[in-house]
Amino acid sequence: MMEDGICFEDVLAELEELKRRDLGYTRILSSMCTHPHPIAKIAHNLFLEANLGDPGLFPGTKAIEEEVISMIAALLGDRDATGYITTGGTESNIQAIRAFRNASGKDGENIVVPASAHFSFDKIGDLLRVEVRKAPLDGEFRVDPAAVEDLIDDRTIGLVGIAGTTEYGQIDPIEDLAKIALENDLFLHVDAAFGGFVIPFLDSHPPFDLSVDGVSSITIDPHKMGMSTIPAGGILFKDKRLLELLSTPTPYLTSKAQFSLTGTRSGAAAAATYAVLRYLGFKGFKRVVDRCIRMTKMLKDGASSFGVVPPVEPVMNVLTLEVKDLRQVIRELERSGWRVSVTREGFMRLVIMPHLTEPILQEFLDDLKDATGN
Amino acid sequence: MMEDGICFEDVLAELEELKRRDLGYTRILSSMCTHPHPIAKIAHNLFLEANLGDPGLFPGTKAIEEEVISMIAALLGDRDATGYITTGGTESNIQAIRAFRNASGKDGENIVVPASAHFSFDKIGDLLRVEVRKAPLDGEFRVDPAAVEDLIDDRTIGLVGIAGTTEYGQIDPIEDLAKIALENDLFLHVDAAFGGFVIPFLDSHPPFDLSVDGVSSITIDPHKMGMSTIPAGGILFKDKRLLELLSTPTPYLTSKAQFSLTGTRSGAAAAATYAVLRYLGFKGFKRVVDRCIRMTKMLKDGASSFGVVPPVEPVMNVLTLEVKDLRQVIRELERSGWRVSVTREGFMRLVIMPHLTEPILQEFLDDLKDATGN
Repeated sequence: MMEDGICFEDVLAELEELKRRDLGYTRILSSMCTHPHPIAKIAHNLFLEANLGDPGLFPGTKAIEEEVISMIAALLGDRDATGYITTGGTESNIQAIRAFRNASGKDGENIVVPASAHFSFDKIGDLLRVEVRKAPLDGEFRVDPAAVEDLIDDRTIGLVGIAGTTEYGQIDPIEDLAKIALENDLFLHVDAAFGGFVIPFLDSHPPFDLSVDGVSSITIDPHKMGMSTIPAGGILFKDKRLLELLSTPTPYLTSKAQFSLTGTRSGAAAAATYAVLRYLGFKGFKRVVDRCIRMTKMLKDGASSFGVVPPVEPVMNVLTLEVKDLRQVIRELERSGWRVSVTREGFMRLVIMPHLTEPILQEFLDDLKDATGN
Repeated sequence: MMEDGICFEDVLAELEELKRRDLGYTRILSSMCTHPHPIAKIAHNLFLEANLGDPGLFPGTKAIEEEVISMIAALLGDRDATGYITTGGTESNIQAIRAFRNASGKDGENIVVPASAHFSFDKIGDLLRVEVRKAPLDGEFRVDPAAVEDLIDDRTIGLVGIAGTTEYGQIDPIEDLAKIALENDLFLHVDAAFGGFVIPFLDSHPPFDLSVDGVSSITIDPHKMGMSTIPAGGILFKDKRLLELLSTPTPYLTSKAQFSLTGTRSGAAAAATYAVLRYLGFKGFKRVVDRCIRMTKMLKDGASSFGVVPPVEPVMNVLTLEVKDLRQVIRELERSGWRVSVTREGFMRLVIMPHLTEPILQEFLDDLKDATGN
């Protein structure tokens, strides 16, 4: 910070110059975030000052949060589930595992997660001092339930299944995991950070949410496919007592206790989430998801037509492709402004978010064809 | 969520109705948050989509974060300090204690914090599985260094001092704590979530920041007296190796690793913080702090004139008052729309934030005089 400030116009000019360095989403096929829905931006602005950490001052914003939780609880198979709006998938996953840990009464606890689990679970292991055991995947990059069972011991407190893996968009066999959880008296958390706003709107899908007996909690991220603003995550617990294990007393605030990981919390992102859910309804979300799935199929068929094929059939709007000389192909695509990412197994990974369009994807296919020498 | 969505105008009408239930800040003397500065709102909007969790896509926003860290590092006594923009004081405090814990190599660790420490330290104790020992305060609600020393044992990993306590705005004797930390080979974290944007601008103040030999890390919250938007916190480490102990590898992102507690992170709040710092500069912040201190003195003198006095001389823009029949007085003030809070010792607590004005405070004094029967 300098001694003197600079004038309003100069600050804006600096900001605009810095913003030009950001890539924007137009040619981004590597991100699970996207443009917020226009109504999300309006709602965000309207509630920009609201702090959900002090709900007595913001009872309207608090009512918004409660309504959002009630809407996503209905979406995810249990209207009576409780939870709150988090900063995103990582906080949601932290809080689920923390609740399991605090409920377990065990020492030297471990959890069993799929090898495909988001890297936030490594963070969680360190943060909460819980061992994170990784179960191998089957040929379609879904966790192998038998392998999960093998990793359970008397210090295991819970299992994790992924509904929409970050790398392949695959859905773990949640019903099988739930059966194992029930048989071994373990909690089961479903990480549907990405899939939560996709799977319910697919034409058909396996049971994956709180409607499955044995699922204890679920993560869903409004700031991914929910087209809300950052930071908007969601955590739901089937049993209210798990949420209560996260409680910290809050003297000198308008509330008596809080469950959230952070103190001050964005009311703006909660309002943005509310606005998108109210505006689109189930039917509107289905249209968005249908469009992304259609574009995914177009991308798969287009790439296949010149011999670039997926290692696994996509089940949602995440497509992986087997590409020779991948690093070089990516460098060439980057020269045309494209951004794609790479799975740990070395496949090209594409996330087909709502900011993409068919003409843009046709351009991408043309460039991919050139870059792969087809 | 309903099957069908509702129209744009109806969503906005609902939001506006809900917003009317929020109190707004005009008569709020209980909050450490305030209206964001107008330039913060503009910057926030400009970067609403930016995700600091994926810096390769947002190099401009990443540059903004680096510049903010460099500005607050200069403000807090060590231009070479490293850190990042967090979601707020709780995340900053979590990360400091987590780094200490990971560096210590001890088992069954404990930290010694002032009895006045923010409730987030109770949360942290649970989250990180670190025992939180609370040292009693002196007659002016600052931690007693001798009491801190008594609580240290061979499992202690670090100490915490508060620069601007939540309840009294007091500054712990950081130099004394630093001496104890150095003598006992312990880390020392300073929680200046509130005070970080106040103390440097007071006409005189004791050393409290990274310039004090022995201070390892410091928390400062742009979304409190920094007049930025939510969520904007800051954590700074004197030694980069502490930050590196928080690293998690991030496959399939544009970065190799991340230090933050959350994954997806608001670029908007970072830009808002940048804008306020650039626009105001040191001199502008001093004007804001001077004004809040002037209003605090007005409130203290006004209340004293009818016999309501502070239990301790205010050192910043937090004022406590000894009020008989406090609960009843608060109920009466609430009827006129005022919100104040209560310290754990039973004093009325007032935070004099930039959203307040002298005419508003005069109205408050008149109502306080009536409510206390003076």
